[in-house]
Amino acid sequence: MSRDEETIIEGRNGIIEAFRSGKSIERLFLLDGSQDGPMQTIKREAKKQGLRIEFVSRQRLDQLSPSGKHQGALAYISAHSYASVDDIMARAEASGEPPFIFVLDGVMDPHNLGAIIRTANMSGAHGVIIPKHSAVGLTGTVMKASAGALNYTLVARVSNLNNTLKDLKKRGLWFACAAPDGEEMYSQDLTGPIGLVIGGEGSGVSRLLRENCDFVTSIPTKGDIDSLNASVAAGVLAFEIVRQRRMLISKKFT
Amino acid sequence: MSRDEETIIEGRNGIIEAFRSGKSIERLFLLDGSQDGPMQTIKREAKKQGLRIEFVSRQRLDQLSPSGKHQGALAYISAHSYASVDDIMARAEASGEPPFIFVLDGVMDPHNLGAIIRTANMSGAHGVIIPKHSAVGLTGTVMKASAGALNYTLVARVSNLNNTLKDLKKRGLWFACAAPDGEEMYSQDLTGPIGLVIGGEGSGVSRLLRENCDFVTSIPTKGDIDSLNASVAAGVLAFEIVRQRRMLISKKFT
Repeated sequence: MSRDEETIIEGRNGIIEAFRSGKSIERLFLLDGSQDGPMQTIKREAKKQGLRIEFVSRQRLDQLSPSGKHQGALAYISAHSYASVDDIMARAEASGEPPFIFVLDGVMDPHNLGAIIRTANMSGAHGVIIPKHSAVGLTGTVMKASAGALNYTLVARVSNLNNTLKDLKKRGLWFACAAPDGEEMYSQDLTGPIGLVIGGEGSGVSRLLRENCDFVTSIPTKGDIDSLNASVAAGVLAFEIVRQRRMLISKKFT
Repeated sequence: MSRDEETIIEGRNGIIEAFRSGKSIERLFLLDGSQDGPMQTIKREAKKQGLRIEFVSRQRLDQLSPSGKHQGALAYISAHSYASVDDIMARAEASGEPPFIFVLDGVMDPHNLGAIIRTANMSGAHGVIIPKHSAVGLTGTVMKASAGALNYTLVARVSNLNNTLKDLKKRGLWFACAAPDGEEMYSQDLTGPIGLVIGGEGSGVSRLLRENCDFVTSIPTKGDIDSLNASVAAGVLAFEIVRQRRMLISKKFT
């Protein structure tokens, strides 16, 4: 298997074993209509973990299966393990800096997710939070696109971004929603404990999540198209935070 | 053919016709050892245009050929036409602003090239210069990744970036080489006529091109890996130029 391919587990027992050993499953495909004992176990475990099952035809499973021996069940497992939101907050605390995290709302493109994890590492962010559904997880392609940064950067995956935001606001974070129609980033104070909320390709940040943010932050663009690439926008905003924090430190010491 | 696929021309006459009608060819594959008349014509035209020929086996051509009727010759043509460096300078002049261009040294990933063209458009740059060799051209994937920006942004392709830099320096441009070991971008004056030189994935800016630049500019990163993604680095530097130019204008009017 090349480094580019996802890690695939086939067969009902292999998947039950993956659940039991605590592996993170990215996508789970089951043969539509299967009802036997092991299948019920898989469905129960998936439900426990909030994992959406994709019920598919035998032809689709045959296509996905490298060995052809899928027994009606096939899963993609994560190329890297997830951290928890608490892990990220603990890392921020240990750093002695105000927390600086990324929240990604529906980034679907693995190249973008990998590039953002790389940016998080290089901008000194304490972690990245992604949603369980409607977003790409830590696949092999993401691992590769992160250029190794995934080995150093905490990525947490949560069931409900809105609940996570509410919880982190109680713990002192301010959330900045990246969108073109907000106040210009240069005139905002981005030096405090901050969560930078970046929307997915095309759709941007969802309405409800935007309402849960404290303010909207904008990159001053001109041009003929709607927006920057999601990972480029994340990078530009991240380094505006870096710039402001550095200016603040140099002011304190002069 | 899906939008994702490259535009392919097959057969010796089709390729000769493409040359004659002025289409830009991205890559040219010829059957190794072919020597007949039309093949000689193709080789002559390719040489005239400084296009490198890839001599390949019949099996390789069969793989690349959608129709199977390649007659020993197959080419990828550009999804979009190229501008000239003079076109870019004319656009800068018409804007009334100091020229601001991107120079890309060996960007191979079409997603990165597309994202950079998108950034060039949104940051108000006047154009993008890429090299003919060892770099991706304006393929269908680049077109798609640019999210439409390629329709508004001038991209010139040159045989020798070093000669282009020397020429543009005579015309008043200063070239900033993006690399991790230079002076921090915040303490540099990036408000004048500028060419931002970005290296390809992995290799960075080549030694000779770097020596031809006026200075090295760096994003202040911390972290565990070597560098940002090329399109993210281009975005961060581009918007530092935008920031400095805006600050300069606001100073002038207060």
